[in-house]
Amino acid sequence: MKSAILSVGTELLFGQITNTNTVFLSQQLNLLGIDVMYHYTVGDNPERLEEMIELAFKDCDLIITTGGLGPTQDDLTKEIACKTLHDTLVLHQPSMEQLEERFRKYNAPMTENNRKQAYMPSRATVFENHNGTAPGFALEENGKVIICLPGPPFEMKQMFFESVAPYLEQRSDWCIYYKMVRTFGIGESALETELLPLIDGQTDPTLATYASAGCCSLRVTSKRATKQEAKEAVEAMVEQVKSLVGAYIYSTDDENLVDVVAKKLIDRKLSISSAESCTGGLFAATLIDVSGISAVFDRSFVTYSNEAKMELLGVKAETLQAHGAVSEETAREMAEGLYRATGSDICISVTGIAGPDGGTPEKPVGTIYMGAVYNGKTYAEKLPLRNINRTQNRNFSVLSMLDFVNRLIG
Amino acid sequence: MKSAILSVGTELLFGQITNTNTVFLSQQLNLLGIDVMYHYTVGDNPERLEEMIELAFKDCDLIITTGGLGPTQDDLTKEIACKTLHDTLVLHQPSMEQLEERFRKYNAPMTENNRKQAYMPSRATVFENHNGTAPGFALEENGKVIICLPGPPFEMKQMFFESVAPYLEQRSDWCIYYKMVRTFGIGESALETELLPLIDGQTDPTLATYASAGCCSLRVTSKRATKQEAKEAVEAMVEQVKSLVGAYIYSTDDENLVDVVAKKLIDRKLSISSAESCTGGLFAATLIDVSGISAVFDRSFVTYSNEAKMELLGVKAETLQAHGAVSEETAREMAEGLYRATGSDICISVTGIAGPDGGTPEKPVGTIYMGAVYNGKTYAEKLPLRNINRTQNRNFSVLSMLDFVNRLIG
Repeated sequence: MKSAILSVGTELLFGQITNTNTVFLSQQLNLLGIDVMYHYTVGDNPERLEEMIELAFKDCDLIITTGGLGPTQDDLTKEIACKTLHDTLVLHQPSMEQLEERFRKYNAPMTENNRKQAYMPSRATVFENHNGTAPGFALEENGKVIICLPGPPFEMKQMFFESVAPYLEQRSDWCIYYKMVRTFGIGESALETELLPLIDGQTDPTLATYASAGCCSLRVTSKRATKQEAKEAVEAMVEQVKSLVGAYIYSTDDENLVDVVAKKLIDRKLSISSAESCTGGLFAATLIDVSGISAVFDRSFVTYSNEAKMELLGVKAETLQAHGAVSEETAREMAEGLYRATGSDICISVTGIAGPDGGTPEKPVGTIYMGAVYNGKTYAEKLPLRNINRTQNRNFSVLSMLDFVNRLIG
Repeated sequence: MKSAILSVGTELLFGQITNTNTVFLSQQLNLLGIDVMYHYTVGDNPERLEEMIELAFKDCDLIITTGGLGPTQDDLTKEIACKTLHDTLVLHQPSMEQLEERFRKYNAPMTENNRKQAYMPSRATVFENHNGTAPGFALEENGKVIICLPGPPFEMKQMFFESVAPYLEQRSDWCIYYKMVRTFGIGESALETELLPLIDGQTDPTLATYASAGCCSLRVTSKRATKQEAKEAVEAMVEQVKSLVGAYIYSTDDENLVDVVAKKLIDRKLSISSAESCTGGLFAATLIDVSGISAVFDRSFVTYSNEAKMELLGVKAETLQAHGAVSEETAREMAEGLYRATGSDICISVTGIAGPDGGTPEKPVGTIYMGAVYNGKTYAEKLPLRNINRTQNRNFSVLSMLDFVNRLIG
């Protein structure tokens, strides 16, 4: 099945918002085995919208639109969809009731414009909107399908998972199942090389790698006659993947590293604190973004200067003198001093040169050391040098610290 | 002038990358007074690319493409541009020399594929690429112009500012100048209301408001016969804007709040430290993202628990008992304790309920207090309650703290 994604909204043509809906829909349609041939964007202009739909239907059997379902005069997607697929708008009683209920709940007056949102094409499959006033729908004629969804991403995404994906799956002859395996500490090409025995000659499940923000993900996808078959094939493949690169995997359920680590700390009641130099508090801030972390997180230190490292953490002047603030020795002493100050089960430190200034031939920008005290032992590691900027160096440091904690506590 | 933006790349149709080029180009073209009518995306497929160009030229006089200028077989934008505007590719000697120079510099072997990148349409205006191997170009025929730019945003953006904008300005009968005024502490609709006397009946300069991430920006744009006239009109209008909403303005040069504050601190040699509860170190981390901050930033504390607030900052048990950890009194004592611990010129604290849990009827999620010690005085402020999530509450807190510092130091 060939598809086109059509975004409606003058604000997109002004560059006022980034079109994240199209990225999301492209990913999801590809996952469902539907080819995406085109992306189009038009403003709130009925003639151009109609032309675009007719154009897309020349090549494609499926058009998904986002936007233009609001209550105002310039929201015309529904009308144009009806016109091109020869249907008319009629009152959709369940939608009207939900709208009325919604306005009662928020104690807001309902205008005639709002009522317009409860009118749907007579032959449409209507998709409920739990997060806004505009329902979505699918309309079909002679094998051509147009699916119209609301523009706000929050409304559109939930509607997609809840209603659109099942609608599309039902029309398809196969079932798709996938798992997203997340790794840290291995690059994309190295990961591919390790997995070559599984990738070569493999037609189903398929394996695809994605690199983003210092982590590398692997999507294992199967397309079979039943969901159960696809699921079993994927799970068996994930086991094989684990046997090859298990040491780098931190999640087989598409979780973020910070969520995996925070959950382990909370479940095992392991308290944690950090002493941060180059990351300036970003490790603590990242950890604290997880709700419930207060059970194991109490306090942390940002020790940016040498004085702060000495006064707050007891790092020795001789150590700083002999090895520098950015050194394995300083990272160790920072973690040990932090343990004296907090007594946390895991004490983690970081010191490095984030850039753009401060690099030397011996210690170039990106030279970063982590230290840790755990179970009565002190550990230290140097991060692999990467050619990235200040912000990326700091983000990479935080991920590396989370990975370090994850490996320490096992 | 009517334009279309055409993105080329199968990776976009897979949803592997977000199309930020189109957002950037839409903004820039609108700023140049060029209407953007359509966005299109096609894969690396010559027939579909050709169809799309012909389609766009029906309505538009200008097409800007990004992507498909690389050295590989599937990079065909240049060839298709030539075909539709009846030109042929010829060796462009300056581009070849730059390519050879580049490969010498990186000590990399140059293949026949790479040489292909130095062939340009014979009638093209060629745009140099300082960040990659693919030059861009503009090609014209009978008033129709196609401008082909490389896909990597870093390469494309510099080329746009350096070569494309001047090329387009030269072809235009007017000049555009604009300034971006940044505000904090006033909502978009309130800002519009305050500026109504300037907006109503105003045709040039125009004023447009944009809200993003807790800040509100105002773009003042003028379109005149000469750049000088446009600049003078914009500057006069910015003065009028200042007289109405000057209290909320932190930059008239499109700077970030953190950069404005950090620059003031560094210029005036004012040292700063923070004691953070709900933001968990994010204020310090944000400040430290500014290169050169080490001149004024030394250390900070993350005091998440009541014990940490008492032990590290000397917040009194009675204060916590009587007013709670999230209270003006606690915020004041945190700042005062921080001043005792660090002696920094500005000591700033924050304590609040970021959510989703922890809210009560008296102190709902989003209740946040800031404290500060500056010039021997203690200050405290409550943030306006906003209905936002944990991450947004924390980001809003950091912006509010920066704004607080900015107002205190003046």
